[in-house]
Amino acid sequence: LLIVGEKINTSRKLVQKAVKQKDEGFIRRLARSQQQGGANMIDVNCGTFIDDEPELMRWLTELVQEETNLPACIDSPNPEAIRAALEVHKGKPLINSISGEKERYNAIVPLVGEYDCDIVALTMDDTVGIPADTDTRMRIASELIQSLDREGIDIGRVYIDPLIQPVSTDSNNGRIALETIRRLKLEFPKVHVICGLSNISFGLPERKLLNEAFLAMAIAAGMDAVIMDPTEWRMPALVAAGEVLSGADPYCGRYLKAYRKGILKPK
Amino acid sequence: LLIVGEKINTSRKLVQKAVKQKDEGFIRRLARSQQQGGANMIDVNCGTFIDDEPELMRWLTELVQEETNLPACIDSPNPEAIRAALEVHKGKPLINSISGEKERYNAIVPLVGEYDCDIVALTMDDTVGIPADTDTRMRIASELIQSLDREGIDIGRVYIDPLIQPVSTDSNNGRIALETIRRLKLEFPKVHVICGLSNISFGLPERKLLNEAFLAMAIAAGMDAVIMDPTEWRMPALVAAGEVLSGADPYCGRYLKAYRKGILKPK
Repeated sequence: LLIVGEKINTSRKLVQKAVKQKDEGFIRRLARSQQQGGANMIDVNCGTFIDDEPELMRWLTELVQEETNLPACIDSPNPEAIRAALEVHKGKPLINSISGEKERYNAIVPLVGEYDCDIVALTMDDTVGIPADTDTRMRIASELIQSLDREGIDIGRVYIDPLIQPVSTDSNNGRIALETIRRLKLEFPKVHVICGLSNISFGLPERKLLNEAFLAMAIAAGMDAVIMDPTEWRMPALVAAGEVLSGADPYCGRYLKAYRKGILKPK
Repeated sequence: LLIVGEKINTSRKLVQKAVKQKDEGFIRRLARSQQQGGANMIDVNCGTFIDDEPELMRWLTELVQEETNLPACIDSPNPEAIRAALEVHKGKPLINSISGEKERYNAIVPLVGEYDCDIVALTMDDTVGIPADTDTRMRIASELIQSLDREGIDIGRVYIDPLIQPVSTDSNNGRIALETIRRLKLEFPKVHVICGLSNISFGLPERKLLNEAFLAMAIAAGMDAVIMDPTEWRMPALVAAGEVLSGADPYCGRYLKAYRKGILKPK
């Protein structure tokens, strides 16, 4: 399972302040703590800085890679900001994201060919926005995958994000998300499925409990990449548990290694 | 979700001692603490007392019901012990269990008709023992359901137990269990699926973490009854979370009620 650390996002107040002040130490610590928690990739999002997003995205990407040597998940709908980060990125980054929205699609997809990238594709488009049901998500995913394939992009590079919606607004949203994950992996086994989990618990109390339970469920459904906070010890511990329970960890090898490293319980 | 409290089982050393000494207070406290943790039913198992099992099963059943007013899950392969408990049980008990093993089946099934019972049926038989795969479990489940239906037993009274095996002995065992649960609910929607979860983690470290993650996964797969320890706060909390996330809790009503009762976090 690919773990993308979600914390370097300027929608979080302390990150907003640190980016504004160009506080390198704060960003470095946030990157390092996520790597120590098991992140294989670090998300960078400075979307709250509308005018300076390209420059700041480049600064964040360089800083995070200098500190961790991990690839970045370049999290923006803005092609200029994405390009600015790609120009300095070392290794293979993940662009987050395109969708079925035409303008965004057309501006960002050429970058995937130009640089050596993986790409997140959201199951939404100009007509329906975020779909309420599984079938529409599957239709949009299928169109995106076919379209990217026609552009010559290896579909093993595509990460479909089924856009999990809160159970507080519709109590079927958890079931719909899990069903979508399962069907995506059945119909497109080469394509990856990535989820930002925490949206599921929006508007409810004890959100961590819900996020933890949903992480286990999503792994069992076939999710193979997750955007989450790896500095909460229980989340990477549940990834290790989830992989062994879903048959993705032969001879329980990674689970036992995680145990020996002490990451299956609080520090 | 039906929660069956598993703790009154003489394979546990302190319970063995308490039953031997007829320590009513100990058994009452164990029953009450499980009820307070959210158990809807209390399992009673004194299978280690081979000669006195019927008499002790009757004693335990009366005591547990006097203390909690909950139905008992009468946990024994011994028809005499089951009958002794049924004679004193008030309300509708759950017999745990029959299987495809002929002698056991023939001796216990008449009791289901004679008393007003629900019944656990294990997916094993005389020929294969405990099956290694999903298909054989499905075949045995199907034969048991058809056979009970022919006896005139309402199949809504049947709880199939797919006999979860440890991932430590075969790392596919978690996947096989989840797939069996899912297929049972798809092919026999009226039949219940019950699991004893803790076997999944046998032989591995940090068993609670594995049991918790597997509880969430099994609820998402469609399990609707579970034999577990409800005195560990996180287990009933995960049941509440699991139901809301799997679409089994309209308007998140039970989850919010559980929150207000304070059971979603440690006491």
